[in-house]
Amino acid sequence: MIVTIRGRRRHFRTVTFDTARNAVVLIEQRLLPHKFEIIATRNFKETARAIRDMVVRGAGAIGATAAYGLAQGFRSFRGTDVQKFSAHAEMVYQTLKAARPTAVDPVNAMNQIRTALNASPGATVAEQQSLALAAAEEFANEDVQHCEAIGRHGAKLLRNGMNVLTHCNAGWLAFVDIGSATAPMYAAQAQGKRFHVFCDETRPRSQGATLTAWELAQQKIPHQIIADNAAGHLMQRGKIDLVIVGSDRTLGRTGEVANKIGTYTKAVLAKRHNIPFYVAIPLSTIDWKLRSGAEIPIEERDESEVLGAWGTAENPKAEGRRSKSGRRLYVRISNPTSGACNPGFDVTPPELITGIITPIGIFKPRELRAQRRELCASAR
Amino acid sequence: MIVTIRGRRRHFRTVTFDTARNAVVLIEQRLLPHKFEIIATRNFKETARAIRDMVVRGAGAIGATAAYGLAQGFRSFRGTDVQKFSAHAEMVYQTLKAARPTAVDPVNAMNQIRTALNASPGATVAEQQSLALAAAEEFANEDVQHCEAIGRHGAKLLRNGMNVLTHCNAGWLAFVDIGSATAPMYAAQAQGKRFHVFCDETRPRSQGATLTAWELAQQKIPHQIIADNAAGHLMQRGKIDLVIVGSDRTLGRTGEVANKIGTYTKAVLAKRHNIPFYVAIPLSTIDWKLRSGAEIPIEERDESEVLGAWGTAENPKAEGRRSKSGRRLYVRISNPTSGACNPGFDVTPPELITGIITPIGIFKPRELRAQRRELCASAR
Repeated sequence: MIVTIRGRRRHFRTVTFDTARNAVVLIEQRLLPHKFEIIATRNFKETARAIRDMVVRGAGAIGATAAYGLAQGFRSFRGTDVQKFSAHAEMVYQTLKAARPTAVDPVNAMNQIRTALNASPGATVAEQQSLALAAAEEFANEDVQHCEAIGRHGAKLLRNGMNVLTHCNAGWLAFVDIGSATAPMYAAQAQGKRFHVFCDETRPRSQGATLTAWELAQQKIPHQIIADNAAGHLMQRGKIDLVIVGSDRTLGRTGEVANKIGTYTKAVLAKRHNIPFYVAIPLSTIDWKLRSGAEIPIEERDESEVLGAWGTAENPKAEGRRSKSGRRLYVRISNPTSGACNPGFDVTPPELITGIITPIGIFKPRELRAQRRELCASAR
Repeated sequence: MIVTIRGRRRHFRTVTFDTARNAVVLIEQRLLPHKFEIIATRNFKETARAIRDMVVRGAGAIGATAAYGLAQGFRSFRGTDVQKFSAHAEMVYQTLKAARPTAVDPVNAMNQIRTALNASPGATVAEQQSLALAAAEEFANEDVQHCEAIGRHGAKLLRNGMNVLTHCNAGWLAFVDIGSATAPMYAAQAQGKRFHVFCDETRPRSQGATLTAWELAQQKIPHQIIADNAAGHLMQRGKIDLVIVGSDRTLGRTGEVANKIGTYTKAVLAKRHNIPFYVAIPLSTIDWKLRSGAEIPIEERDESEVLGAWGTAENPKAEGRRSKSGRRLYVRISNPTSGACNPGFDVTPPELITGIITPIGIFKPRELRAQRRELCASAR
């Protein structure tokens, strides 16, 4: 997508590979929105660390990072001994897998590369190294194509003058490009449609207020940040026409959607107000195994996320809207003698979801199951 | 209520009057929860400023502050000329009224004092001065008695082992003592009941994470702060048994409740999960005039509240739970090139409210109208 750096608008992917330096090139997302910085990991361990420490986050983006990281690790092997290479390859795989143990995307991405290698038995080390890189590139390109397809299908939902609500960041920063929940917006914008987006702040980590708002600002889509408390009131007053969110995991069998904490609340509100509620999902996040949303483990995250916030110091009155991008710091914004409870995700049941926007079309949540063959074929 | 200062537990009211110094004594609430500081306003203009600048906030607390401020202003008049005193008295009244133009409590409180004065026609200046102070004291004591009565009625709703959700701060800091939404909790605690409270953070101003959490910590009631996004998930998983919130304005005719932004959302969620949703209200906040919640003006507050947060800098890992109460600062926690939309309140319709806890009993929202005579008699 488009990023403005020193006044120049440039195209970027969130994850790319530098063949000459054998480096995975990433946006340092923890510095956003205050600073746009590109980093290059020098080896697969640094890549694993970037995944673990959330330099890069989001389903598609960590999938592609792991895929490139696997190829990077393979390519760092010196020698021609296929046995030793296999042991090394396994170690690289496990290191990258361990970086985000609950995430499904890195594993799926790396398995896709393994599958490509298995299709060429007897390949030399050098052949395996280049096959892995080609497969990683293919994974990244597919991620982009899937997001483009989500955009094509979802753009039909947007009409001129609409107010769209989104929660958290399922934007291009979470993928290799374009994003899932944002894809219909970017596609509609490209078609010349005019609309306005309300970005839920998305406490406690504020990905909506920071990442999504930053993306929309870069993309010049009119938007306003709202407190997570405000959506209900805005819906009640007829100021929201459509909700589009992403998904961390969608159960193919039931149509239940696990996503950032607060998604369920917005779905309940949308249902009450008969506002269409759509979930845009990349195919990699469909889980065909679990039989109930109750089986989805809900990560209990560190209480410091709720008890404080990260930001840059500024004087709100004196400096107006633009922050002098100062030092980023953590401030305690709660009573110092209280603790917090911090569930990271929630599960939205299918009856609250109008439709699931996939790369192969929009389906009712309970129709996903019937589309399994198609969806799986496209996911490969 | 109880406040621990340098290890000693002391009783405090949020608003009192120092007769010797002719001063209104207030807790500087803007420093909470990081610092507990008492201030004394030297004249009615300082008192008006304290109301305007939210040194003191909350329905009952600003009512009592205005009442004491009126007496303070009356008592600063030198001389015996009743005509001149009347002009002075009117000026004091208007100054205090203008401090929070949309709030109903300061006006109601001051009118109660005027009514007391009107009952003694022909009173001298000195008599009017002491009548005003006596009426202000009575107003403050009534506020405390009303909150105690809310506590008596509401405590029956709490049972051992319950998890209670509250939103914003309708605690003793918002009143002269005890609070409205918190009154049932404090009364139940005094009865030996054990329960746990989830405090909604209540962005954008975070009164739940700061003030309510601080109160509950002082009062040694077990509690946890949660992101405003988390309540839906907790309800879905059966972790919330009861919701009690306060109210900025309750329409006596319809049973609609205006309260801090996000209240409506919690009511919608509670309804879906069949969780009792109660609103505790002081009588002064009942509005008998408006015929529909749509007539309630919803204050659009400054966007800086959403775009940033106030807190104290600290290292979350190194210092653990207790903040070294450093300098309080504003940090920008959102994209610097985005704006915000910041409605301050929302309106909850009667069908989502299980009951309204008043000083004279608990009523269904639509029953308030039939209780008008009783409620108005008690309010005087």
